[in-house]
Amino acid sequence: MPNIAVLGCGRIGRMHAENIAAHPNATLAGVYDIHAPSAEDVSQHLGVTNFSSVEEILKSSGVDAILIATSTATHADLIEQAVEAGKPILCEKPIDLSLDRVNLCASRISGSSVPIMLGFVRRFDPGHRSVRNAIADGKLGDLRQVIISSRDPAIAPDAYIKASGGIFRDMTIHDFDMARFQTGENIETVYATGSRFVAPDLMAQCHDFDTISVVLTTKSGKQVLINNSREAAYGHDQRVEAFGGKGMAISENRRNNYATLHDAHATFQGAPLQHFFTDRYREAFFNEISAFVDAVSKGETPEVGFEDGRQALIIAEAAFKSVAEGRAINSSEIG
Amino acid sequence: MPNIAVLGCGRIGRMHAENIAAHPNATLAGVYDIHAPSAEDVSQHLGVTNFSSVEEILKSSGVDAILIATSTATHADLIEQAVEAGKPILCEKPIDLSLDRVNLCASRISGSSVPIMLGFVRRFDPGHRSVRNAIADGKLGDLRQVIISSRDPAIAPDAYIKASGGIFRDMTIHDFDMARFQTGENIETVYATGSRFVAPDLMAQCHDFDTISVVLTTKSGKQVLINNSREAAYGHDQRVEAFGGKGMAISENRRNNYATLHDAHATFQGAPLQHFFTDRYREAFFNEISAFVDAVSKGETPEVGFEDGRQALIIAEAAFKSVAEGRAINSSEIG
Amino acid sequence: MPNIAVLGCGRIGRMHAENIAAHPNATLAGVYDIHAPSAEDVSQHLGVTNFSSVEEILKSSGVDAILIATSTATHADLIEQAVEAGKPILCEKPIDLSLDRVNLCASRISGSSVPIMLGFVRRFDPGHRSVRNAIADGKLGDLRQVIISSRDPAIAPDAYIKASGGIFRDMTIHDFDMARFQTGENIETVYATGSRFVAPDLMAQCHDFDTISVVLTTKSGKQVLINNSREAAYGHDQRVEAFGGKGMAISENRRNNYATLHDAHATFQGAPLQHFFTDRYREAFFNEISAFVDAVSKGETPEVGFEDGRQALIIAEAAFKSVAEGRAINSSEIG
Amino acid sequence: MPNIAVLGCGRIGRMHAENIAAHPNATLAGVYDIHAPSAEDVSQHLGVTNFSSVEEILKSSGVDAILIATSTATHADLIEQAVEAGKPILCEKPIDLSLDRVNLCASRISGSSVPIMLGFVRRFDPGHRSVRNAIADGKLGDLRQVIISSRDPAIAPDAYIKASGGIFRDMTIHDFDMARFQTGENIETVYATGSRFVAPDLMAQCHDFDTISVVLTTKSGKQVLINNSREAAYGHDQRVEAFGGKGMAISENRRNNYATLHDAHATFQGAPLQHFFTDRYREAFFNEISAFVDAVSKGETPEVGFEDGRQALIIAEAAFKSVAEGRAINSSEIG
Repeated sequence: MPNIAVLGCGRIGRMHAENIAAHPNATLAGVYDIHAPSAEDVSQHLGVTNFSSVEEILKSSGVDAILIATSTATHADLIEQAVEAGKPILCEKPIDLSLDRVNLCASRISGSSVPIMLGFVRRFDPGHRSVRNAIADGKLGDLRQVIISSRDPAIAPDAYIKASGGIFRDMTIHDFDMARFQTGENIETVYATGSRFVAPDLMAQCHDFDTISVVLTTKSGKQVLINNSREAAYGHDQRVEAFGGKGMAISENRRNNYATLHDAHATFQGAPLQHFFTDRYREAFFNEISAFVDAVSKGETPEVGFEDGRQALIIAEAAFKSVAEGRAINSSEIG
Repeated sequence: MPNIAVLGCGRIGRMHAENIAAHPNATLAGVYDIHAPSAEDVSQHLGVTNFSSVEEILKSSGVDAILIATSTATHADLIEQAVEAGKPILCEKPIDLSLDRVNLCASRISGSSVPIMLGFVRRFDPGHRSVRNAIADGKLGDLRQVIISSRDPAIAPDAYIKASGGIFRDMTIHDFDMARFQTGENIETVYATGSRFVAPDLMAQCHDFDTISVVLTTKSGKQVLINNSREAAYGHDQRVEAFGGKGMAISENRRNNYATLHDAHATFQGAPLQHFFTDRYREAFFNEISAFVDAVSKGETPEVGFEDGRQALIIAEAAFKSVAEGRAINSSEIG
Repeated sequence: MPNIAVLGCGRIGRMHAENIAAHPNATLAGVYDIHAPSAEDVSQHLGVTNFSSVEEILKSSGVDAILIATSTATHADLIEQAVEAGKPILCEKPIDLSLDRVNLCASRISGSSVPIMLGFVRRFDPGHRSVRNAIADGKLGDLRQVIISSRDPAIAPDAYIKASGGIFRDMTIHDFDMARFQTGENIETVYATGSRFVAPDLMAQCHDFDTISVVLTTKSGKQVLINNSREAAYGHDQRVEAFGGKGMAISENRRNNYATLHDAHATFQGAPLQHFFTDRYREAFFNEISAFVDAVSKGETPEVGFEDGRQALIIAEAAFKSVAEGRAINSSEIG
Repeated sequence: MPNIAVLGCGRIGRMHAENIAAHPNATLAGVYDIHAPSAEDVSQHLGVTNFSSVEEILKSSGVDAILIATSTATHADLIEQAVEAGKPILCEKPIDLSLDRVNLCASRISGSSVPIMLGFVRRFDPGHRSVRNAIADGKLGDLRQVIISSRDPAIAPDAYIKASGGIFRDMTIHDFDMARFQTGENIETVYATGSRFVAPDLMAQCHDFDTISVVLTTKSGKQVLINNSREAAYGHDQRVEAFGGKGMAISENRRNNYATLHDAHATFQGAPLQHFFTDRYREAFFNEISAFVDAVSKGETPEVGFEDGRQALIIAEAAFKSVAEGRAINSSEIG
């Protein structure tokens, strides 16, 4: 039962710490945050060590693995340090906003056998995974098209948007990974278009978009359509559809309850879609920990790793280039 | 391809006439109504004969079969005449409001081989029938419970209610037949309770109810729960559920369209349930004609006949007796 | 923030202890079980006191309230002791299998102001509660009919069944309480019928039933139809429908995921219904603790109390009598 | 009540003739087909005139309007003749496979006030139209994205495919028009990608595709994602989703019946999606006639006309060009 330390005690780090503490097959070794009070709060609430530094964690014999949930700019450094210390890593996406930095990191950790898992949590959602299972089990025949609808309930604060690296690196990156997860292939061409409806001024200022559509193709000709919006009045919209020669599978949205109301005007489902990603992907975050614990315990390579993070970033860069040039970009032009 | 004459040109007779005219395997021989202008209107619209009398129809060599859609009080007489004339019959339910009259009719036509089909149209609804097929195919294992929800969108005019014979004979009778159709058994015990919510004064005056619940049991212990209301704000509610050792099948309600609207408050299906029974059971009425044509063409006994009509009426009488006495009535006390 | 001690560390007691430990507004004071190793296991897992006796708990100034999850036969005694000790109580249903014992308990605690809450957990299910809210908010108009479908995924072990007090006291009792919760009225008449399909020999031996249908009426004429089965191949079936003058509300079943598969034969939802009641009512059990904590903290009377438990038991006794006599029983004949 | 003659008695012409014959506000003046037996068959079945030539129809004072359902190559000629004869026209899509021919036709009929309606039937589907109405009524706020999924149940015969003008002109053209119908704007940029999964050899031979994805943008930045397949194992897949600042509307697929089966493995909807477009769009074809009859009777311009057909063809040409060049094509490069 691995002892896992959590680095970063913001909203996501805290949630991961709680999941590890509650997990039947893992122990929470302790937490750390550069902002000491945040870590203090979590360590008291969960009754675990508040580490004084990253170094202390990496040297500790009581820490078997680490979960990186610090700010994005620190991810690559921490990965490099943890690899050197031989501590298996579960790192929140993205590895870095810069592909150059990611490639540098890749060369620095090259040859290491320390397990690195990337936090593409949506792969662990029971619904999205059952779509992938239907493909893998041959229930859909040869896969032909994938449609990913992914809309946030509400736009993040301005400061977050400005530091996000842009919608393709921050938000669509989940869908780029989902595209690779469902098709089981790398992406060959990327076409993207972006609009500014939600916060036009902010987006213009950041050379960013809040509403995007993307078409990806794989080498074998599979097509992936992605749509994103930074805002959806009706809740957190998260659907994945896979279409093949024998059938179609859809991972549908989820609700807080399934009561319906029928009156003279309509039939209502009054409970909105689950709004926050921590609700929507509650089981996925828990399953993600399970997968990491499994890999660490068995000494196996995690099913989603560093290279998956790098590939998703390549697609994101291609997407920005595609919008700028109005043409499909071959991923080989980027990576 | 049988030539079928329609007796009675009210709303239902007219619909039957149109269905026969449009049917690929039947011909509409003509129509008749004691109220000549009604028949005249239909005969002109569909370009067929307006017969001058029932006798003319029954003597006509151009008429192979008849459909009786006249007022209830005439059904038994017309059945007896048509049997004597050797014309196969599709008769709207009920045979008569009086079980004595039905029994007399039964004795008078006893021994005849003229096919008589009763218009329990719901047996021919694709959804309800697929539930029955699931049972017959063993997909549900041994059948244990049936739940029938049957609510009219709006109460009929006072005059109709007063002449209806009461809710159990007029409305629940469809569900009593559905109970026998789904269980494939006769009903042994009948418990019923009735309330007056929709039109309390009218109902009290008629010693009738507008809101009823019924529990039936069969000899083998299968249980059937029925609920009826003379009014449902949200449309024509018609559901059948069958539950057995291996599973459950449900025939759900239907809508005019399947568009949904998702906003910040709810998810809506704005199109109400199909409101009128002629919409809801459009295909069922057409399939009923097909079944009749098949039976007539092949000289086979229709799958739902005179005795089914009699059994449903027995249950209706038992239901009234049960409400009056506050106990379960064994159908042998009635029939 | 009340400190709550849990009495009984079986499956349900353990779950309650975990929920209290995780609850933001309560503290788990400790646990107790007459079978010491069970309590030891839970106390270690959650890092709380393992009390040595009920007396110790009731005397402890560190215990503000107790949750009774011991075997049914001990409930009434423990309620009486806790009332004397002045400790607020959340007691699992039923109070006792014997109405006489319940009435004796009622007289002994009469006049006390110690809050007693009964664990009718389904009242706290978000779906079932939203149906009740729709009624209370007038969205359904005047309530006319309630339909409760409640089927267990699999029958309990023989020993459990034999000691259960019979299906109406053990299983339908939840639905009897749901009937009172939804209608907001006491039950006037009870008609019940029972069959033996799941375990015919065992049921005959226990003079019990595994498949039942019940019709209840209230003074104002509202009708409640209940169906139960000790076994449902397709999972834990838990639906509540309320029908009134302006509309209908339905609390539908829930699934583990909402992925669909469409192929040439059918559309599938491969994820079964949630199977175990601790999954199906996960939020309800948590909300139940919240309601108890609220009542204790604010010194208010819990919304579901001793008399609700007594009323449900009266209906259960009436149901057994109804099956035996084949007639509707007035609850005044029992209580 | 206009007398309408139907030109072309193939599958679609026959269906239109039957709809006109059954329509309460129109009369079927007669039919014509260059293949005389086809027309003979329809004329006998429906009891109407079998015209000997197009000229006879256009000269006939008994013909108020015509419906063109002949082969595509004849559409432009017939439109020109009918305009000259002053007969209002309902013409099946497309006007012609060649944009040059369409433009020539446009210039020839320029200045005429004879009503011309194009048979983009999907605009008249109750579900798709209710999405458009939700947009028009402001229920979705500002429209941002439209997703159109349109998959045929099975590929047409080789000969049909070879003569079809390619998937964008033959199949996607419906979706191009749907994009304009839902957004209420012309299309500015077109990006398309195509694959060959269903019939790779045939498609390669025709320089055509059987599986396509398209992204359209309008001047205001609205995005439309379209996916098509010539084959869908699970039936005729026809969905339209519109997403805006206040919500989302979806026109969902339809089934032949709404019965569900729940067993230990899954929940099934055994009835497949409606398979043939004449089933799926039964009401739409009827509503289309209604709209044409309305326009003719009131002397109004039909809501979908010649220019709509021309615009859809421009998008189709842009799509082919986009696949060839791997870039977004501005429609001004085509039209």
